[in-house]
Amino acid sequence: MINTLFLPELREMLADNNTAELREFCTALHPAKTAEFMEGLAAGEAWQVLQHAEPNLRAEIFSYFDYDRQLQNLEREDDRQVAELITHIPADDAVDLLSELPEERVEHVLALVPAPDRRDIRRLQTFPEGTAGSIMTTEAACLDERLTVRQALEKLSRQAERLETIYYIYVVDDTNHLRGIVTTRKLVSSFGKLDRTIGDLMDTDVLTVDAHEDQQHVARIVAKYDLLAIPVVDSERHMLGIITHDDVIDVVMEEAAEDVQRIAAVDPLEDSYVRTPILTLGWKRGMWLGILFFAGLFTALALKHYQVWLDEYNWLVLFIPLVIGSGGNSGSQSSTLIITAMATGDVKTSDWMQIIIREVATGLLLGSFLGLLGFGPALYLAPNLISAAIVPITIVVVVICGTLTGASLPLLFQKIGWDPALTSNPFVAGINDILGIVVYVNVASLFLDH
Amino acid sequence: MINTLFLPELREMLADNNTAELREFCTALHPAKTAEFMEGLAAGEAWQVLQHAEPNLRAEIFSYFDYDRQLQNLEREDDRQVAELITHIPADDAVDLLSELPEERVEHVLALVPAPDRRDIRRLQTFPEGTAGSIMTTEAACLDERLTVRQALEKLSRQAERLETIYYIYVVDDTNHLRGIVTTRKLVSSFGKLDRTIGDLMDTDVLTVDAHEDQQHVARIVAKYDLLAIPVVDSERHMLGIITHDDVIDVVMEEAAEDVQRIAAVDPLEDSYVRTPILTLGWKRGMWLGILFFAGLFTALALKHYQVWLDEYNWLVLFIPLVIGSGGNSGSQSSTLIITAMATGDVKTSDWMQIIIREVATGLLLGSFLGLLGFGPALYLAPNLISAAIVPITIVVVVICGTLTGASLPLLFQKIGWDPALTSNPFVAGINDILGIVVYVNVASLFLDH
Repeated sequence: MINTLFLPELREMLADNNTAELREFCTALHPAKTAEFMEGLAAGEAWQVLQHAEPNLRAEIFSYFDYDRQLQNLEREDDRQVAELITHIPADDAVDLLSELPEERVEHVLALVPAPDRRDIRRLQTFPEGTAGSIMTTEAACLDERLTVRQALEKLSRQAERLETIYYIYVVDDTNHLRGIVTTRKLVSSFGKLDRTIGDLMDTDVLTVDAHEDQQHVARIVAKYDLLAIPVVDSERHMLGIITHDDVIDVVMEEAAEDVQRIAAVDPLEDSYVRTPILTLGWKRGMWLGILFFAGLFTALALKHYQVWLDEYNWLVLFIPLVIGSGGNSGSQSSTLIITAMATGDVKTSDWMQIIIREVATGLLLGSFLGLLGFGPALYLAPNLISAAIVPITIVVVVICGTLTGASLPLLFQKIGWDPALTSNPFVAGINDILGIVVYVNVASLFLDH
Repeated sequence: MINTLFLPELREMLADNNTAELREFCTALHPAKTAEFMEGLAAGEAWQVLQHAEPNLRAEIFSYFDYDRQLQNLEREDDRQVAELITHIPADDAVDLLSELPEERVEHVLALVPAPDRRDIRRLQTFPEGTAGSIMTTEAACLDERLTVRQALEKLSRQAERLETIYYIYVVDDTNHLRGIVTTRKLVSSFGKLDRTIGDLMDTDVLTVDAHEDQQHVARIVAKYDLLAIPVVDSERHMLGIITHDDVIDVVMEEAAEDVQRIAAVDPLEDSYVRTPILTLGWKRGMWLGILFFAGLFTALALKHYQVWLDEYNWLVLFIPLVIGSGGNSGSQSSTLIITAMATGDVKTSDWMQIIIREVATGLLLGSFLGLLGFGPALYLAPNLISAAIVPITIVVVVICGTLTGASLPLLFQKIGWDPALTSNPFVAGINDILGIVVYVNVASLFLDH
């Protein structure tokens, strides 16, 4: 929902070039709300409004713009203004945005960025997407262990505005090796003992991640240990930067969306849905649809194998979609439950025995229920009572097959080191299509041959 | 993977009742690691080890135990020890755990908890699960606006150990109304001006949530504004507690798992997979399977309608699962992509036109690809070239139907205020089963009647 409350006023202020009021608008509210009130403006208008805020505030409001609007601004606006903005946003966000601009433009802009910031950006650019290095910020509070609490507080009070987070203070030696950590909580508790040194207070048992570590792994550690931030180091424990809790929430959300996409047999999108080109979308979906298509072909061949038979008892054909659907649906449920339970750590592969027992029991329960539902229509469409019994019996067996395969496949995938989310719903359904046909015809032949 | 490194030593220390070494074990490592090293112990042994840590540390290590182990400990151990633990863990966690114990036991334990902590727990118990009140902690740093920075730092330095987070300081008046907020960052920046008052520093534009607000809504606000914590207030803006970033990560993970379950047509589990009774599991899956079953029945009736026809051209039956599967799979992909894109805010219902165009284009692309794949087998199984063309043409139409329905349903659900994740993959597949049969027979009749 776009908030149109201030739009006419904002446009008037811009038309009149009313500097005082525009500055007031930028500072009056939380930056996120300021950004929200500008959603109805064109990207260029919003950029003009931003120019009335101080560089730091400007960067903060900008960070709450839609990613698309951010890109539009960077693509269209003046090199010098863009460089000033890039200097004031966290280096990791800058790298993300710059990666979408043409090489040549990036060079022009970076040439106008002060050397220390440019160096930070250049270094972050070397880490591939999805690694810890690519989401870290270089603006961490680093102090020398020889400082006293008083000196530390004085130093921090000067740096506080510039740093992304000051809630952990990292203690480094002269060559930037990470020696320990002091929480601001501990620093504040030591307000009564201002002459103690940082070295006295620091905790040397610091959790760190390597810059090349997968971002999902980082998110798991931060979530597990309830951290506000985690330091990123190289192989020699040099301090490179930190990853903060808000980046972790983003990673968790991103990874959750990827899992959901895998479960629906879509190769995860790297970009947002609307920014992904149709051809890329086609490829990411087509490769899986192609694989599933071959499962469908096997089903066709299985049916071919039983064709003479199905011609004779042609009413059986009517229940094919129902029978294979029951297996596929219950299988999708099982695989999804196991995938999510493994993702949250509720079950491990070593619990497989308990899982299989539970799934067979649930399958029996669900199969009996669906079988009962199916018996009525079968009585109506089948020639006699004996034949009609084929449908419910098949459904019971097929649903148990569904829960069993649905639960086993993610366990198996996890065991052999694949992503369990690859056992997508359509994949489970495809396997159960073939199983369903085979079970159906065999149950039927038991009844009809006698 | 259970870490067995220290198990023999730990068991020996317990056997010898070696207090000094057990205390050393509890304090040497990060509490999360200490808990990890105890995973191989029986729950009762781990509890014994814990008794050698100071109450605060004991509570912290305990918080890293598996939820199951925590429950086992609470169920089996001595009332007095349990009460001491309950006093030292955050009130929101205490409420969660106590809700799993028998009423009578809870009364016994709470009688041994000091009155202020008991009051906190009692108050939190009144908020239903899933609300902001149920996940908040009451241990926030609240200060009077008349304090100077020096007084505030002194007061905080005494309270710091007890509070869950001290990174935001909430300014309240004498009747506990929330007046404003001061970040510790700001407090630290004011280290050079110790005589300013908290009232001077505070920001009065505070984001708050109502205690009865849905937890998912809270998580979205915290994620959007990159907050470390958000205050929870009642309708008169009395400060009740705070929700911290780590609880938000838990909510995000929990809600993601629920969405995934809905997409696979499972009513979200309230408990972990292994702790959910089979009958509950059966109900949460059965209700959706029942609904989908009726979609399957309609497919059976549709086939019945065309039966004479299908008897005549019996080779058409072979491709039924393939054709309806192609529609269902591409539909599941589309609905999942739109559901995840709406969840992350990438698309809104107002973008429907753009989405429909994209999906029709993608459907055409994917349908043509699958149609091409299907033409070969059709040539092999169909009696002649003209008949064989029925299969690819049907697939193109069915896949476009799939992408269209898959993308439209979540948009429609969102528009009318339902959860878009209710357009589960099996539901989309069920609709496309019927559509698939109708399209298939109609395309076939066009070719075969001439």
